[in-house]
Amino acid sequence: MIIVLKQGITADSIKKIIERLEARGVSVSHFSDIKRDFLGLIGDTSGIDTHQLQALTEVEQIVRVEEPYKRANRKFHPENSVVKIDKEKIGGGQLGIIAGPCSVESEEQIIHVAKRIKAAGANFLRGGAFKPRTSPYSFQGLELEGLRMLQAAKAETGLPIVTELMSTKWIDEFVDSVDMIQIGARNMQNFDLLKEVGKTNTPVLLKRGLSATYKEWLMSAEYIMSEGNENVILCERGIRTFETETRNTLDIQAVPVIKKLSHLPIIIDPSHAGGMSYLVEAGAKAGIAAGADGLMIEVHDDPANAWSDGEQCLTPDEFAELMVKARKLAEIEGRSIQEASTLLTK
Amino acid sequence: MIIVLKQGITADSIKKIIERLEARGVSVSHFSDIKRDFLGLIGDTSGIDTHQLQALTEVEQIVRVEEPYKRANRKFHPENSVVKIDKEKIGGGQLGIIAGPCSVESEEQIIHVAKRIKAAGANFLRGGAFKPRTSPYSFQGLELEGLRMLQAAKAETGLPIVTELMSTKWIDEFVDSVDMIQIGARNMQNFDLLKEVGKTNTPVLLKRGLSATYKEWLMSAEYIMSEGNENVILCERGIRTFETETRNTLDIQAVPVIKKLSHLPIIIDPSHAGGMSYLVEAGAKAGIAAGADGLMIEVHDDPANAWSDGEQCLTPDEFAELMVKARKLAEIEGRSIQEASTLLTK
Amino acid sequence: MIIVLKQGITADSIKKIIERLEARGVSVSHFSDIKRDFLGLIGDTSGIDTHQLQALTEVEQIVRVEEPYKRANRKFHPENSVVKIDKEKIGGGQLGIIAGPCSVESEEQIIHVAKRIKAAGANFLRGGAFKPRTSPYSFQGLELEGLRMLQAAKAETGLPIVTELMSTKWIDEFVDSVDMIQIGARNMQNFDLLKEVGKTNTPVLLKRGLSATYKEWLMSAEYIMSEGNENVILCERGIRTFETETRNTLDIQAVPVIKKLSHLPIIIDPSHAGGMSYLVEAGAKAGIAAGADGLMIEVHDDPANAWSDGEQCLTPDEFAELMVKARKLAEIEGRSIQEASTLLTK
Amino acid sequence: MIIVLKQGITADSIKKIIERLEARGVSVSHFSDIKRDFLGLIGDTSGIDTHQLQALTEVEQIVRVEEPYKRANRKFHPENSVVKIDKEKIGGGQLGIIAGPCSVESEEQIIHVAKRIKAAGANFLRGGAFKPRTSPYSFQGLELEGLRMLQAAKAETGLPIVTELMSTKWIDEFVDSVDMIQIGARNMQNFDLLKEVGKTNTPVLLKRGLSATYKEWLMSAEYIMSEGNENVILCERGIRTFETETRNTLDIQAVPVIKKLSHLPIIIDPSHAGGMSYLVEAGAKAGIAAGADGLMIEVHDDPANAWSDGEQCLTPDEFAELMVKARKLAEIEGRSIQEASTLLTK
Repeated sequence: MIIVLKQGITADSIKKIIERLEARGVSVSHFSDIKRDFLGLIGDTSGIDTHQLQALTEVEQIVRVEEPYKRANRKFHPENSVVKIDKEKIGGGQLGIIAGPCSVESEEQIIHVAKRIKAAGANFLRGGAFKPRTSPYSFQGLELEGLRMLQAAKAETGLPIVTELMSTKWIDEFVDSVDMIQIGARNMQNFDLLKEVGKTNTPVLLKRGLSATYKEWLMSAEYIMSEGNENVILCERGIRTFETETRNTLDIQAVPVIKKLSHLPIIIDPSHAGGMSYLVEAGAKAGIAAGADGLMIEVHDDPANAWSDGEQCLTPDEFAELMVKARKLAEIEGRSIQEASTLLTK
Repeated sequence: MIIVLKQGITADSIKKIIERLEARGVSVSHFSDIKRDFLGLIGDTSGIDTHQLQALTEVEQIVRVEEPYKRANRKFHPENSVVKIDKEKIGGGQLGIIAGPCSVESEEQIIHVAKRIKAAGANFLRGGAFKPRTSPYSFQGLELEGLRMLQAAKAETGLPIVTELMSTKWIDEFVDSVDMIQIGARNMQNFDLLKEVGKTNTPVLLKRGLSATYKEWLMSAEYIMSEGNENVILCERGIRTFETETRNTLDIQAVPVIKKLSHLPIIIDPSHAGGMSYLVEAGAKAGIAAGADGLMIEVHDDPANAWSDGEQCLTPDEFAELMVKARKLAEIEGRSIQEASTLLTK
Repeated sequence: MIIVLKQGITADSIKKIIERLEARGVSVSHFSDIKRDFLGLIGDTSGIDTHQLQALTEVEQIVRVEEPYKRANRKFHPENSVVKIDKEKIGGGQLGIIAGPCSVESEEQIIHVAKRIKAAGANFLRGGAFKPRTSPYSFQGLELEGLRMLQAAKAETGLPIVTELMSTKWIDEFVDSVDMIQIGARNMQNFDLLKEVGKTNTPVLLKRGLSATYKEWLMSAEYIMSEGNENVILCERGIRTFETETRNTLDIQAVPVIKKLSHLPIIIDPSHAGGMSYLVEAGAKAGIAAGADGLMIEVHDDPANAWSDGEQCLTPDEFAELMVKARKLAEIEGRSIQEASTLLTK
Repeated sequence: MIIVLKQGITADSIKKIIERLEARGVSVSHFSDIKRDFLGLIGDTSGIDTHQLQALTEVEQIVRVEEPYKRANRKFHPENSVVKIDKEKIGGGQLGIIAGPCSVESEEQIIHVAKRIKAAGANFLRGGAFKPRTSPYSFQGLELEGLRMLQAAKAETGLPIVTELMSTKWIDEFVDSVDMIQIGARNMQNFDLLKEVGKTNTPVLLKRGLSATYKEWLMSAEYIMSEGNENVILCERGIRTFETETRNTLDIQAVPVIKKLSHLPIIIDPSHAGGMSYLVEAGAKAGIAAGADGLMIEVHDDPANAWSDGEQCLTPDEFAELMVKARKLAEIEGRSIQEASTLLTK
């Protein structure tokens, strides 16, 4: 961290600022050129609040050279992390393909969809049991009953379960019955929830907030990791922009930027990004081409009758076709997608 | 709600869509012109999910004519709401002036600041006990000890207390010791937290999310109100834009727009909006001129040593000066600000 | 400007970078602490392209301490600028009140509106002759005929004329017949147009681009000023945000920020900002309360039949009422608005 | 277009509105349900200004069902357009690969780069002669001398030239010496410039504005096409978002959305989107995977000494490697990239 001081600061003022900074456990170098004085801070500056320093009338500008995240930082962990989720992994050569309906609607539905997506090559089942809805009058999910249905689908297919946790109230039930806990975009800075999942060992899929920067997103991962749970996977799901033709804008550059800044795996959710089924193929393929570690795709047997988000779902057949194309692309990129099983595809 | 159907839809398809819609308890009128068919929905459409309807291949476009919020809607509650908070009110002729430090730091500090702001004309005390910080390594607040200090300050000054709740875990403590519960910008769509405060009778100060639309903000108010707690006050605190000179951008138009759409009181927080103390005066005065029902302003005895957000705090003296100007402005606008007490100003 | 070098750079590489920088006419100081080397650049860095320096593999980060604008910078021109426009001024104690229709539609219309707004206290007439329209199929303005009608209205009322120039092709006609040339939001970075108006002596009203930062806006002012024309007035007219209830979001903080960074006058256009007539009063009053040097307001005799932007126009009666309120507010703020003339108000 | 009227409108008012609309050459159907009246407009509504209709006090809401663009609309031109540029084409099976330096710096430089990129498989040469720079003090391009150098490079390599036009002043020189005229992001709504290039037959590469919506972008294409020049190619070059780690955010969904709405070819510029050379590969590959018709990539022999935008340039070697990967990807997608020539690669 470099602090640029205003012009004309007295030596005495500089001395006091240095003492104040050293009291926080960093060491400080003082430079000056003809016009200005600068302070360079060495040591762990992650706890120093730049907003507070900015309140000092002597300070012109503050520049963070070191990133404020440590455990998520590639600098201190150069190899890519591979996260184990039940008997599967995300972050290595094989892509993690998470598919399933927006909401769990019935045991029959979720088992049926689980079989179809597995047959097409998915290796994780998603399905919402607790749903974050903008309106209190919209369907809020089957809640614990939904979790039970997901487990039934896992029992039938062996697919590990990914589902969203919205409240610390249900954390024990999730740890017991879910293979990867999803933290949704709207809760990316629900710091209380982040800390609580950080105290578990269950892998966490952390979705990017609708208007979060990369740094804020990594700081949210840091919240989880700083509590001890390093099994974090990031999920880019589109950001809010001015565009109204699409639900959100898929930020494909998130993949190379996150790969540079962090060792954590990152996957792409093209279903929520575009919010329209016709946009899923382009987003999914772009994600693989850009180096993502997996995909999260909404699949529903009857999109027009889905209880939520129907317009962005693929049918199982459309999903199977997409997997064929995605598999070829993954190979070009030196990755793989699990083979489709001809037995189960219908 | 109007549904525009694609061109060339068969009469049979239209009949099926109408049946499906009527099954949800709305009545449907069918119109057509030379090119297209339209369906007009009458009745309570607040539970109808437009994303789901959009999944129907026959649908070209859906237009919501009715707003999806009911209890927050001015249409069904034409008079301005006035919310009682302890022995004070927000929403009537007298502005609610909420002031105090970003974080409660010590009993001495909070009592001292409370006396000074009361003397200048504030009628509410704010102070953070639980702090939402971007970094897990930053100061997280004094927590329950902070609540106790706020109560001590109330005992000395009589000022009702406003402080932020971040977790459902502490809701009982807040109901017992806080006069108005603040829901922060980052939790505006923490639906679980909204529902829980909705089950209490404690007034709620609902801050706008950093990139939330007016409609989403009112839907979050609706979450609280739909659980029974209608004591909601909205707080505009700046939205995220491309600008980097300021922390956020104060959206002053929020005042007239919210006043048109809703009966709920709305206040302005110029401290968080700009994030710099030199911007507070302009934002506060603009808020009053635009018709806001109150202000929320950060005041700290020694901003350069504040434990958080120092660069946006006013000193008690600066706050007292601002109140003098704000009072004149309020009078021009037919409102008032509590008189300053000469006894207590130092 | 400070350049932070990557860790582990050799002394030889540093020497080469310093030579390269000195070749551009700046002097360079070299500092280092235990971990890193820094270069501090002294002198005129406004021509140095940080994007180019960033391409050097040795560079970690570049920090501009000095702003890249000079003539627009308050640092080198501490007093507020007052711009003379015909026999009026903007930037001093009396607010500049610019009013009139979006488009000039007929001589009769523009003369009638000019009389009405003058009677209410406006001291400038606006009216579009060349219209920037999103669609090529929308009305594009009366062009030169419109300029002639504006002159007729000036002949009747004495009000100086403000109108938008979209093309360098008409610059001579504008210099001859217009008192202040408006550069519209969409042309804020039409650098060719900026340079050409910079070569004239006609005052320029520079609207902020829809998603321009303050710095970009001031750099556009600098384009005009660097060609010799220092008669620049800035106009905040709303920025693009996610909100769809309003056309744009009025950024009221622009006033205190621009006043801090620059000596140029700044006015507020609440008509374009909100895009709805019911929002004009709040925006106008907020602008005055925040310290703006003037207002630009659309007034049309028959908004429902306006040829463009009807939904944001005030009627002359509404404008006259607004001026009464605005005048009181201006007085509280130590400013004035020209008196209304009772003779002419109908 | 559907107009929703406010509740309680009299039959007489409705009749007047219908007459007013019919006077504009559209036919109007009138529907009503229990609560409201609706008007459906049939015919060419592209010249109707919704902002004006919104000014009618009787109007609640206006819904455009038809898009306001015609010539750019896929509905009226179902096949993909293929644009001929000199002896090359963009829009068919072979991707258009446009490469070259940000600025033309010398004849030697541009010829050298042209040879290298051609050898790697590029089929167009780009290079800026007139540069839109945020600062008037930055290098503004070699102007006409730069055009001459581009022609020299074309004479050596046969590569058609793409370069940016910023002013109508130079339009004749561009028509004479340039194969495709680029309209930059900052000029996307410089309507005067759009009309002028629309009067030529030279193909136009229309970059998307930094915060333009798809509809605005297509309306800018419509401006060009409505003057008679239908040779328009769209270029997605990143949009402005809150992210500060990257220069802009590449909106990859632009490809499938534009392909759905329009028949015009669309290419991707990953260099400007990310603004950093390490992001180019991911963006380029994502673009091809999403279905783009080409790429525009900055290549400079010595990025650290580039006169502009050095940090986003690839070296010729990096570009050649990228082309090898891109070619494989294109084949998977049923497209091709011109073969590399082994003779010329060094």
